[in-house]
Formats: sequence, structure tokens, C-alpha cells
Amino acid sequence: LTAEVPSFKDSAHYLAELAEFVAIPSVSRESNPPDMRAAAQWLAQQISFAGGHLLETDGNPVVAGEWLGAPGAPTVLVYGHYDVQPTGSLEEWRTPPFELTVTDGKAYGRGATDDKGPILVVLKTAQAYMEQFGALPLNVKFLFEGEEEIGSPNLPAFLRANADQFAADLVISADGAQWRPTEPSVSVASKGLAALDITVTGAGRDLHSGRYGGTVQNPVHVLAQLLAGLHTPDGRVAVPGFYDGIPDLTAQERAEIAAVPFDDDAYAAELGVPGLHGEPGYSTLERLWMRPTLEINGITGGGPYTVIPHVASAHVTCRLMPGQQPAAVIEAIRAHVAATATPGVTVAVTAEKGGAAAYTIDPRHPAVAAARQALAAVYPGQEVINARIGGTLPGTVLFEEVLDAKTLFFSFSIADEMLHAPNEFLRVRRLGEGMRAWSLLWQELSHQQPGAMSASAQPGASE
Amino acid sequence: LTAEVPSFKDSAHYLAELAEFVAIPSVSRESNPPDMRAAAQWLAQQISFAGGHLLETDGNPVVAGEWLGAPGAPTVLVYGHYDVQPTGSLEEWRTPPFELTVTDGKAYGRGATDDKGPILVVLKTAQAYMEQFGALPLNVKFLFEGEEEIGSPNLPAFLRANADQFAADLVISADGAQWRPTEPSVSVASKGLAALDITVTGAGRDLHSGRYGGTVQNPVHVLAQLLAGLHTPDGRVAVPGFYDGIPDLTAQERAEIAAVPFDDDAYAAELGVPGLHGEPGYSTLERLWMRPTLEINGITGGGPYTVIPHVASAHVTCRLMPGQQPAAVIEAIRAHVAATATPGVTVAVTAEKGGAAAYTIDPRHPAVAAARQALAAVYPGQEVINARIGGTLPGTVLFEEVLDAKTLFFSFSIADEMLHAPNEFLRVRRLGEGMRAWSLLWQELSHQQPGAMSASAQPGASE
Repeated sequence: LTAEVPSFKDSAHYLAELAEFVAIPSVSRESNPPDMRAAAQWLAQQISFAGGHLLETDGNPVVAGEWLGAPGAPTVLVYGHYDVQPTGSLEEWRTPPFELTVTDGKAYGRGATDDKGPILVVLKTAQAYMEQFGALPLNVKFLFEGEEEIGSPNLPAFLRANADQFAADLVISADGAQWRPTEPSVSVASKGLAALDITVTGAGRDLHSGRYGGTVQNPVHVLAQLLAGLHTPDGRVAVPGFYDGIPDLTAQERAEIAAVPFDDDAYAAELGVPGLHGEPGYSTLERLWMRPTLEINGITGGGPYTVIPHVASAHVTCRLMPGQQPAAVIEAIRAHVAATATPGVTVAVTAEKGGAAAYTIDPRHPAVAAARQALAAVYPGQEVINARIGGTLPGTVLFEEVLDAKTLFFSFSIADEMLHAPNEFLRVRRLGEGMRAWSLLWQELSHQQPGAMSASAQPGASE
Repeated sequence: LTAEVPSFKDSAHYLAELAEFVAIPSVSRESNPPDMRAAAQWLAQQISFAGGHLLETDGNPVVAGEWLGAPGAPTVLVYGHYDVQPTGSLEEWRTPPFELTVTDGKAYGRGATDDKGPILVVLKTAQAYMEQFGALPLNVKFLFEGEEEIGSPNLPAFLRANADQFAADLVISADGAQWRPTEPSVSVASKGLAALDITVTGAGRDLHSGRYGGTVQNPVHVLAQLLAGLHTPDGRVAVPGFYDGIPDLTAQERAEIAAVPFDDDAYAAELGVPGLHGEPGYSTLERLWMRPTLEINGITGGGPYTVIPHVASAHVTCRLMPGQQPAAVIEAIRAHVAATATPGVTVAVTAEKGGAAAYTIDPRHPAVAAARQALAAVYPGQEVINARIGGTLPGTVLFEEVLDAKTLFFSFSIADEMLHAPNEFLRVRRLGEGMRAWSLLWQELSHQQPGAMSASAQPGASE
């Protein structure tokens, strides 16, 4: 085995392959099985050195592979997802979403940064090792799923049925963007997710707003009332029990977060909002990292013409903190909605499959230390920040439960790269930076004792 | 001139022509100028006996014509509109909206009953007179507009500029559906309309709900709060000043309405709602006929995926009673919305062009009496009810102001025929019934003194 890291070509050399991957419209929410399978097969081909192949699930296939030629070294499981978010409004895209377009050092396209670009970084790192040294510095297994963007509904059953095959000392996730472009960061937590729909139904059909107006309840009026009742006017979630189980922030946590450089005004200006807004009693970073949220992601009903719509609905997702269980949060919302009188209509609260609890990794975990070293080497002179992910990675909690493995987030996406929005992009320089960092991380981890990184081996694991 | 009414073919004979008219997708809200013009030209051709031709406006053309061969007899202006509402969701249509489809005595298609079918009734009545007698029983002018469904924004300027050409003793509207299928009715009032959009804007783009959640205001949350604040929980409009200027119902009005047979449970069952709902203190018919409404017709924002939408909006229309002015109502809503603090977003209230005040015609007006006689003859043994239209006919107030002419509603549409909704239809039998009724109405009106029907000639007109 080598103690050196391989050399890489200029990032631009890898963009053609990223373009191939992005060109496959693997939108899991609008699942077109041939597209999903094409993306999976593209990935399997890339890890042919590790026997890459497809494994069926009850949904989109998993891409699996393993290279186990480093006896005595730890085994890491590389995780990522080949599915992408819907494009949203095509009018808001400045370039075609499935044609990777490079401008001013940014590569635009759906999935460029979530998660196809960051996966490419791992693929090219591993291929460079194999080509230049004929070996990887440690044992590597791969698991790429195709349903992360819809909450990984089939991953739990799949992983439980194949736990031995994916056993590893540590999971390294190519998903889970770094915080911001101004400095490198290691994420030590991610929020959980609970998703649901609220649907209000009135008449059997849309009604002329003049010829029936005033005599029947309008489902949009009820929906607005229910949605307005989910928050207090000052920005707290108004659902009784929503915050149950979340520990108060400690003075130390508050001090550590306050020490992170953060400029509210610059942040507001970057987002284009007239001002920031959130739960009273917390700073912006505390809200982002340490407090759960309830967001109405979408509403729909009727249209710009004179009807009383017969149905109106909203999609709601909650980002959860440790201590909150997705099912309990959904039941709390259901009870809160049910407690509001809504005569003249019927109201349904439907939980979406695939909730996930929040996840944390101790900042003192050896993998976090290794990641910090790798980043410090790639970004000399910059402080490496311990950050948190407001987003959700459903696999993390599952890997801990089923594989006894903690997950290290090691993505080269950055959270400002329009994830889930029109004009998603990846900074091209991050391809090369990421390959060098993955090489250094693997070198560093190769010196760890196998088993020392497992979840149950960590201090306080039995708490 | 003849004192007889012409004979008509079976209704089915006229359906082919109605199918031609319906096949032209003259949707004014999605205005495609060639379609609008094609519908206008089809109409002009139908009234070629009256010199039918198109007149330009700042929007869609008006179809005009006149037959003035009855010296000494009154002159009536026949009004209708050739534009139709958007189809709404095509999935909810059981037949193609622009292919007239006849099943079980009902002719389905967009515009079949609003207002193309009822216009056909007049056209065929006039053509039968001309073919069988070579004359109409009174002087008739025609004005068919193409923008009624968007609030007739260009009709006021057009009519003022051409007031002499359209001077008449009475307007007879082929628009303004009869109330319900169980008995004939004459409508003696219609509600006014004020329309506006409320748009809430946050960030410059949709944001990932995890990576930004909790730090910025969500425009959907603000929109829900604003919309919920438009009504009190018990169903009154909560906007200060909204009800200003509306007289209380008199004991006589309440008694007359209470005397109209109406079954709340049957009405709820027909609409498919679990119960009725409306302003406290009023019966269902009082709410429908005598009280203004504020309805949210449509809401849109984001979608069923994990974003904080950057914009959310609602379309709102109010149906107004005499005493309410559209502009004042919109200003009251604007002020109410502005009085709610909405930090972190911008809120815009945009009035839609083309509001209209409410309209009434005295039940003792000679034209109402004539209409009642005609209906009584066509529907022997059935009581003719004085009803009110919850919908809005912007031309009515305008005709009174510019032409000093009252408007008689004499449509053979029925309000339950899915106006503005999917699966709009016309009862086929109403074609023949309508032609006979129009003939009888014209005969009856031909005996009136010209000028005796004008608005200013009515008792109390100076009030």
C-alpha cells in the first residue's frame, strides 16, 4: 500500500464526465424508472474496479461495490445518492437543468452539487489511486442510493436485509454540503425531517364564486387559517408538543456558536431578503443549527379566476433536532390541526413516508479529527469550522443503528450552491480540492485501528 | 309587423351550430387574438340580417348590428359575451371542453351555458322572425363583447365613445343565468365585483428548507396569516369598512326571501359539502342574495418539495352589494393587509382592472313584468320567482349610466350548469324554451311606449 496521494488532472478534465452524469434526469420525485436505472448503471460502471453492480430495492436500485485489498486497515463505506430534486420552474433556470454549463468557474445543472459532483470527486479519487498505485489506502465499500431526495423510504429495509455486506468501521458521506464558501468546515450534525400534506376539501367541484359565494365554506380560507395557526405571530412553532425533548442550549454551545464569525446583514443581503426572521430568543446561527423548524413548502388551490376551489392543500416539512421523533411530530401537528373547528369542509393530514431523526457525531471522533487535518492541508491558513447541517441525511441514523457506524460528512458541495433550487451549481475548483482532500482523509484514516471508530466504541455511546 | 311568434325546430337542430361556436376556444383570460376574433366573426355572420360587424376596442372586438324596421316600437339592445372562462384542470373534464358533447339532454362544453348557448337562443329567435315574417316585432340592436369574463375592462371607454350608436330603451342580457332548474325566475339584481392579488415576496430565489430554515421569513407563512385575517373565525369579513354603505335587510325583504322555497340540506347534498357555512345572522338565501362576500379564489407558492418558496400569492375577489364601491373595497383590503406587520418579506396588493358595482332593477319595472308573463306562458303552472344573481355583470351599471337604460336579465342558462367550472353544460331543452320565451318577451315589449322603460323614467330614479 502507498503512503502517497495520487496526482490529479485539472478539474476541467473531469467536467465532461460530470456532464454525462447530470444529463441523466434522475428525479426521484418524478421517478422515471429507465432514467433512475441509467444513472445507477453509469455509477456502477465508474466503480467497476470494485465490482460495481446494481442491487434491487422496493424502489430505485442501490449501486454497490467493494475493494477490500487492505488487510489490517479500516473499512469505510462511501455513501452518496444519484437521485436529484425536481427542477422546479424551468423559467427560472438560466441554462437547461440537465445540460451541465460552465461559466465563471461554476458548473450549472440539476444535481451538479447535490449530489452528482461530490460523488464524482470520490470516484475520481479512487480511480486515481487504482491507476497510479494499483490499490487504495484502506478498504472501501460503496453504497449509492436513488431515493435520498424523497427521504430514502426503501433504504432501511434494504440495509437491514444486507447489513453484513455493508459492514464498515465508518461511513463517509459524499452528501452533506459544507457550510459556506469562505472557509472549510466539518459538519458534526444534521437535522431530521418529517413531511406531511394538509388537504382541505369542500364541495364536489369548483363553484362559481358569485353563484355560490357566502353559502359554503371555502377550503382555501380554512387552509389559510390552519396554516397561520402553525406558528405564533412572533415566529415560534405553535403546535403543542413540537419542541418536546429538545435540550436547552448550554452556555458552552451558545459561546461556541457566538464565536463563529457571522454577519446577519451580509447574509440577508446575499439572500435578497429585507431582513432576517426566526424564533425569538436565538441568534441566526442558533436558529439554523440548533433549533427545529416547520416550513410550508408549497400551497396550491384554485386559480386566478372567480371560483370557490373545492380543494386546497399544503406541503409541510419539519427539520428536527435530536430528541424529536418524526412520527411524534407528525402526530402533534395532526392533533393541533384536528383541534381547530373546520365546519363545512373535511381536513386530512397525510404523513409522507420516509421521515428521519436528527444526527450528530462527536466533534472529538477520530474521523472528525482526520477530516479537519485533511481540510487544513488543502486550505492552508484557513480555520476549519465545526458546522452543522440544517438539511437531512436519512441514512446517517440508519447506518448507526444497523451498522454501528458513525457517518462523517465529507462533501465538496457548499450550501450556497442553489441546492434544491433553480440554477444549482458546483464550484469547479472544488473538484480538484475535493480529490486531494479525500486522498488525505483516506491516508489519515488508514492509520486508525479498525473498530476504534464504531459508534459503540465512542465515549458516552451507551448514554 | 307580426303579432305571432315564429315556430322553431327541435332543439337538437340547433346543437350543430352551438358546437361550432363552442369549438372556438375564446378564453379571454388567456387571450389568443385569432381565437377571440374567430368567435366574434362567427357571431357577426349570425346577425348578418342586422348588418353584423366587428368594432375595435382596446381589447377584444365588439360585435355590433341593428335591425330598426319597427317604427314607433321600442328599441332593445341585446347584450351577451362571446368570451369564456379558462377550462381549469383538464383532468376534471369528462369530455373535451371545446367539443360540444350531448348526453342525457345536456350539452357539455366550455361556454355552452356561459354564454354561447344563451346567445344562440337569441340569434335563432331573431333569425326565425326574419325568415318567417321578414321582420322583428320591435327594433333590436346587438352588442356582444369579448371580455366579460375578465371584468369588461374596455367596455366602458368603448360604450362612452359609441353611446349614440347603442342608444336603446332597454337592454336585454342573454347573460345572467336563471337561479335553479325547478322553476323559472327573473333576476332583479346582480352583485358587483372587486378583484385583487396579494403577493408576498421573500428571498431572491427559492431556498433549501434545511440549509436556510429558521433564519428567514417564509412568504407562505405570511400569506397564510394575511389570508386568515380576512375573515373572522365565525365567517364575517374582518376587513374594517368592508360592509360600509350596505343597508340592513328590511323586515319585508327578509319575509319575501323566507317565502321562497329553499332546502338547506338538499342544497348541501347537491354541492357535496358536509354542511353549509356563511356569515352569522343570515339565512342561506340571504347570504347568497343580499350579503357581500370575499373569496380567496386561488393560492400558489412553492411545491411539494423541501424549499422555502421565495414568492407566494393569492387571487381574491369580492362580490359586492349596492352601496359598496369596488375601489373603496380594494382600498379597505389594502389598508387591512398593510396594518399587519410582515417583517422579512414584502407584500403587494394589486387591484385587477375592471371592477363593477352591484346592480338592481325594480321588480315593478315593465320589462320585469313582461319577462314574467313570457316565462309564465312557457312554463304553465309554475310560479315565476324573483331571484337575484350572486354573479356580476359589469355591463349593467354601465348601460344605466351611459345609455340611461335598465338591463333585463333574460338568459336560459341555469346557475347549476357548472358555470366557470369543469363540465359546464346547457340543458338542451332550454334552447327551445328560450326561443319561445324570447319571442313572447319581444312581442310583449313591442307594446310598450318607447322611453317609458328608461332608467330615468322609473319611480324613485332620482334617489
